Amino acid sequence: MDTLKVNKRLIMTPGPVSVDPRVSQAMSNSILGQFDYEFVNIMNETMSLIRQSFLTENKWAFPIDGTSRAGLEAVISNIVKPGDEVLVPVIGRFGYLFTELVTRAGGIVHNIHKPMGEVFDQAEIIEALDEYKPKVLAIVHGETSTGRLQPIDQLGRACKERGIFSVVDAVATYQGMVIPVDEWELDAVVGGAQKCLSIPSGITPITFNERFSEEINKRKRVELGIRSNESTEKEHFISSNYLDLTQLQDYWSPKRLNHHTESTTSVYALYTGLKLALSEGIEARAKRHSYHQEALKTALKALGLEIYGDESNEMKMVICVKIPEGIDDNAFRNGLLQNYGVEIAGSFGDLQGQIWRIGIMGYGVQKQNILTFLSIFSTYLVSHDSQQHLNVAESIKTLLDYYEQNEI
Amino acid sequence: MDTLKVNKRLIMTPGPVSVDPRVSQAMSNSILGQFDYEFVNIMNETMSLIRQSFLTENKWAFPIDGTSRAGLEAVISNIVKPGDEVLVPVIGRFGYLFTELVTRAGGIVHNIHKPMGEVFDQAEIIEALDEYKPKVLAIVHGETSTGRLQPIDQLGRACKERGIFSVVDAVATYQGMVIPVDEWELDAVVGGAQKCLSIPSGITPITFNERFSEEINKRKRVELGIRSNESTEKEHFISSNYLDLTQLQDYWSPKRLNHHTESTTSVYALYTGLKLALSEGIEARAKRHSYHQEALKTALKALGLEIYGDESNEMKMVICVKIPEGIDDNAFRNGLLQNYGVEIAGSFGDLQGQIWRIGIMGYGVQKQNILTFLSIFSTYLVSHDSQQHLNVAESIKTLLDYYEQNEI
Repeated sequence: MDTLKVNKRLIMTPGPVSVDPRVSQAMSNSILGQFDYEFVNIMNETMSLIRQSFLTENKWAFPIDGTSRAGLEAVISNIVKPGDEVLVPVIGRFGYLFTELVTRAGGIVHNIHKPMGEVFDQAEIIEALDEYKPKVLAIVHGETSTGRLQPIDQLGRACKERGIFSVVDAVATYQGMVIPVDEWELDAVVGGAQKCLSIPSGITPITFNERFSEEINKRKRVELGIRSNESTEKEHFISSNYLDLTQLQDYWSPKRLNHHTESTTSVYALYTGLKLALSEGIEARAKRHSYHQEALKTALKALGLEIYGDESNEMKMVICVKIPEGIDDNAFRNGLLQNYGVEIAGSFGDLQGQIWRIGIMGYGVQKQNILTFLSIFSTYLVSHDSQQHLNVAESIKTLLDYYEQNEI
Repeated sequence: MDTLKVNKRLIMTPGPVSVDPRVSQAMSNSILGQFDYEFVNIMNETMSLIRQSFLTENKWAFPIDGTSRAGLEAVISNIVKPGDEVLVPVIGRFGYLFTELVTRAGGIVHNIHKPMGEVFDQAEIIEALDEYKPKVLAIVHGETSTGRLQPIDQLGRACKERGIFSVVDAVATYQGMVIPVDEWELDAVVGGAQKCLSIPSGITPITFNERFSEEINKRKRVELGIRSNESTEKEHFISSNYLDLTQLQDYWSPKRLNHHTESTTSVYALYTGLKLALSEGIEARAKRHSYHQEALKTALKALGLEIYGDESNEMKMVICVKIPEGIDDNAFRNGLLQNYGVEIAGSFGDLQGQIWRIGIMGYGVQKQNILTFLSIFSTYLVSHDSQQHLNVAESIKTLLDYYEQNEI
């Protein structure tokens, strides 16, 4: 039989990124039954690790067995029932994903927009909350399509004061920066696996508070026969069974009510990825991301590339650079991948062909990788640069100097 | 940092079961980007392997990134729109899961029932199709809660002749017996990962034909702004984005439209698990299951246990035995697990405390495991048997004789 052959890669995209070999090793442990007392212990410890990772005391912190999108859909489709109004500020592609998910759930979306590459002042969002008086605010924390970090530290409280539920897409920022869920008073937050946590895609840690839990449990579907008021329930119950958070609460609690068969090896991965992140320390990990992002950004500028967007609101886990004139986006990225096994990302919509997105996420964010990447990227790029305006030597020297002169 | 520690297990349940170490090895390969040409090749090969596994020429054969329940929900929630009628024959717990999924999708369920432990004559189901004239027939092939195999080979054609869509839950039977999807003219079939295929839970292979595809594409949600007839679309679009098969078609085809981030290591597992199954051969694999099931069943009878249900409709991938009088179900199973690392399953509802379900599924189905299991199970059971009516020596001898006298 042919075995699966996977060649070496240096992944410098906003995900999926390489995983720590210790995560892979953990995933190779043998299967445990889903109600095996050892697996139940691992589930409970995983919940505790998720709480720590979000800096929350929330009781509810467990994974969804699906990719980040499943986590986002779970939260939205549980809190938004048909006719509910939701404010979705849009600064890029993933704001549109929230818009799409709310619409699918039957909700009414109020979008507010910023020009591509900008973020909102929180005051503008709070103003819109007062204008639209929605039930829910759904907001993207790190908008990877433009590399922008939307400040959200004031929004949780503003929502709470107005009786609005705050839902945050922290898929791209989770474990790449500090997200103090309780301090920011956020109601429901969705993290990501295959970005800064760097475990394989397919499982999504989420957390939500009691206020959120009470609200979604109003829609809990009680099965036929034991239902007291059938007509009311029928109109409002959560339409997904798989992503029904109220059922998942019964599964991820001492009740252990049978639901799906938990994804054993993904839980091993999540458990181990979180142990690694927490033993590094969330703040230290955030610092590692911004340190290497600064290093590479400085070097790319020295190379002669222009950074996209305002540095005051940039994400520290992705660098957006403008594609130099005369370079074909797809051809260059394909060449880089096929010749060197190095992957960077393009972008979406209006930014497609305009910028490259270089991911600085998780396990792979280490000096050796950044240095290696710059050598390959800069030399391959200079071989395509007919105008000879790129300065490879200066760029490499800048990066080496940065690492010599700056301590993490 | 504490590493994850998983103790040794001999899992003899209807899933999740042990995986072949070659699957674990494949999963430890490094991550590839989701649009990396090497990953795209693996995705395409995986589609081809899924087709072969279902003995189908269907164009559409791809995995859902979620557990079996996500696969079932995807198929049901795409084909059933609010108000659609669905016939769901119920012979056990998983018929009720279909009922639940249809109800969540807004469909109207017509249940027909058999007493626990029995299956339907296909003629009875066809009669009900004529009586209820539903849009969809949703039927469970292997009902693990009672260990029953529902014959379905005539149902696909019967549905087709009546303009009805047939949807089959083959989660438990997939890769443990031959399921010729095209020959049986089934419209949509859902396989399982963590049972006879024995890869980790979290990814679910499905297939559906053109007829099914055309029907669900009537509900394809076109995004705001490019929609011609908004009101019609709004009423009927598929309510999930994550489980929207029409979007997954765009992702699992040369269009490669960005949707979720495919679960990389789960695809490695599925690819490798299917390669292993197909290189063994679907018929040979089916024979291996029934051979060892017969072996163990014969030995359990010789031990003095009563087999539950009629042998004419038993699944070959699970043995249901009546729990001997005086034995406490939970205490015995916990003791077996905690003392020996051996896991067997109880059942649900009325059968809880009445039967044990011993899984004969996938990789672990081999002589050494069956012999080891019987030694441990029979000796531990006899230590609990106050009435001393169990015959361990006879049971072990019967199993050894079976293996000596019967070739696979």
